[in-house]
Amino acid sequence: MDYNRKALLLHKKLAGKITVSSKIPVKSRDQLSTLYTPGVGAVSSAIAKDKNLVWELTGRGNSVAIVSNGTAILGLGNIGPEAGLPVMEGKAVLFNEFGGVNAYPLCISADNTQDIVNFVKMITPSVGGINLEDIAAPVCFEVEEKLKDLGIPVFHDDQDGAAIAVLAALVNATRVLGKKLSSLKVVILGAGASGSATTWLLAGREKWQAHKKISDSWYTPPADIIVVDSHGIISDRRADLTTWKKMLATITNKERKSGDLATALKGADVVIGLSTGGKITKKQITVMNKNPIVFALSNPVPEIRPEEAYQAGAVLVATGRSDYPNQINNALVFPGLFRGLLDSHTMVVTPQIKLAVARTLAESVTPTKNNILPSVLNKEVHQKVALAVKKAL
Amino acid sequence: MDYNRKALLLHKKLAGKITVSSKIPVKSRDQLSTLYTPGVGAVSSAIAKDKNLVWELTGRGNSVAIVSNGTAILGLGNIGPEAGLPVMEGKAVLFNEFGGVNAYPLCISADNTQDIVNFVKMITPSVGGINLEDIAAPVCFEVEEKLKDLGIPVFHDDQDGAAIAVLAALVNATRVLGKKLSSLKVVILGAGASGSATTWLLAGREKWQAHKKISDSWYTPPADIIVVDSHGIISDRRADLTTWKKMLATITNKERKSGDLATALKGADVVIGLSTGGKITKKQITVMNKNPIVFALSNPVPEIRPEEAYQAGAVLVATGRSDYPNQINNALVFPGLFRGLLDSHTMVVTPQIKLAVARTLAESVTPTKNNILPSVLNKEVHQKVALAVKKAL
Repeated sequence: MDYNRKALLLHKKLAGKITVSSKIPVKSRDQLSTLYTPGVGAVSSAIAKDKNLVWELTGRGNSVAIVSNGTAILGLGNIGPEAGLPVMEGKAVLFNEFGGVNAYPLCISADNTQDIVNFVKMITPSVGGINLEDIAAPVCFEVEEKLKDLGIPVFHDDQDGAAIAVLAALVNATRVLGKKLSSLKVVILGAGASGSATTWLLAGREKWQAHKKISDSWYTPPADIIVVDSHGIISDRRADLTTWKKMLATITNKERKSGDLATALKGADVVIGLSTGGKITKKQITVMNKNPIVFALSNPVPEIRPEEAYQAGAVLVATGRSDYPNQINNALVFPGLFRGLLDSHTMVVTPQIKLAVARTLAESVTPTKNNILPSVLNKEVHQKVALAVKKAL
Repeated sequence: MDYNRKALLLHKKLAGKITVSSKIPVKSRDQLSTLYTPGVGAVSSAIAKDKNLVWELTGRGNSVAIVSNGTAILGLGNIGPEAGLPVMEGKAVLFNEFGGVNAYPLCISADNTQDIVNFVKMITPSVGGINLEDIAAPVCFEVEEKLKDLGIPVFHDDQDGAAIAVLAALVNATRVLGKKLSSLKVVILGAGASGSATTWLLAGREKWQAHKKISDSWYTPPADIIVVDSHGIISDRRADLTTWKKMLATITNKERKSGDLATALKGADVVIGLSTGGKITKKQITVMNKNPIVFALSNPVPEIRPEEAYQAGAVLVATGRSDYPNQINNALVFPGLFRGLLDSHTMVVTPQIKLAVARTLAESVTPTKNNILPSVLNKEVHQKVALAVKKAL
């Protein structure tokens, strides 16, 4: 089906996918006096006296700001805040449908770290959480770092949402195939937001929280991970690495390989595409170990079409799209994750929370080769994710 | 009825007055693919190619940001962004109920002009209009001045919403009472956002748009206006005036009076309270001309209770509250005004628009002494306001 045409028609018809409406209708002068003036004055006065009452008397505790500057929209790249709006509205739809969360889709004119940080700090009194979205690396890393003590949770979905979903999918893929993750070699194509965060999570440790050792018997890291960016394999031999990529080099590429994607794929068991419109060819797949796992997660156009990957010998293929089997999409993560964060007044998304959510996703389905993850449409899964967040605290 | 207690109970029960929800339910993989990925990619790509399509393919053209820093909340003053949230949520409710507009209630941590300006500029790509709210003077004037070329309309409701509603109410009050506005002396208590803007509008000209002469036979300015702030009558004799109050002095107080509120009220026909929790006593009313008009518009507590004003000789009393007759409230203005602005893609709220809305409000009711303005609950009135905006262009 031609989703492009269909989506354009629907978006034109709707002219906006969300509605901001009153929980109760306003029909009488009495209701007006209670919801608005004069009654609302007593509510404001109460919060002025005890700021904590804002969580009880307003929607702050059920509201999330989706903040993007439009610099890394889907696999489309830096297309600006206006062009990012349909994606953020779509996220707001899923936030409410699957998490019962009120989300404001805010695409902002802000091209540097400090502007984004300032914006988020300013908006904080109105919301219970911040979903950063589609902000290009390395700005997204800097923003997250500067906001870690904001007092409400900040979650860059492109980083950790992707990482969590990929971890769950990979664990289930290995289970279905009878492979042992700890003996597999994984190649990650893309060292942007999602590629980097996925590497950190798969590798079993995260730089910033290194002092909190993650030991979870559920999951053992792969034998090795090689990350490939647009200049080739990331290794400590490269002189052109940013601070963030240097950190990646310290926990990946044990054999200190150099070269291109094909070199990286030689002898690998898994390839995970997390690029911005990157490509993986059939020929490249053929140099991998036998029966490779291929996750081609660039959206809307995967790095390789599933049918091509299978032709090249892949044993299990997943994409980020809703219209193929094995969808690996952040939409499995953020609605339930924020539901849990908001309900439990959690201030920070810890590694423990991330692993608990990944495990819950993996265990919420009896995986098959065409069904390694539960459906995004399954509301029960989102509830389980929320519960997992609360239990992980 | 005790609206304070009732409002606290309702706000606790609701925990937020608005819902951000999907226009259509998400039940199938097909819908997911159309609303979200992969279909949404085509929509983003289309806007990336032609930015103007954002108005057709997203909700931007039906969205307004309500932006407040919580420094002048109702009559409560500077109580902070959290405490302002119930008011902004209430406005979002009315925006949707009466204007069909999606409004985001955003209370921000920003205590200076530049921060508010930066915030508004950053959020602009996501919305079709900015409703500034409850920002203390003179910051609100500076913010409005700096945002006048934003490209989408910026409306500080405390200033012009109040001014428009007061003008409509005053014209109708004089009609009911058979008084001639052009021969009346008016005292305005309060030289903050609403007091200043009301003075400019009543006086029939506005500093910033002075080159556009407003001549509207419908309305003739009063004989004189005297503005009183917390230090007394504003006149060019005072040495303590801000730039903004100096401008007020040039168009008011023809007799160059000095002194307190009582001095100002001597010989006045109308008093309009637009203060932050200020007071007007019965005794002060008694020094006014016979049968004075009293608008006590501080919210939630009027400068004088209507019953007291009547006892002191007032012939017609109005407040800002929903639970008394003659409510003069911005809620009559902003939903229809923004509906009209958004529908017509208007970039600036001109003096012509303000006068057209005031006239429409005045003419939407057959006024009586207890009913000088139409009801906020009358949806038809909001539609007429929207139409008036479009016609005024």
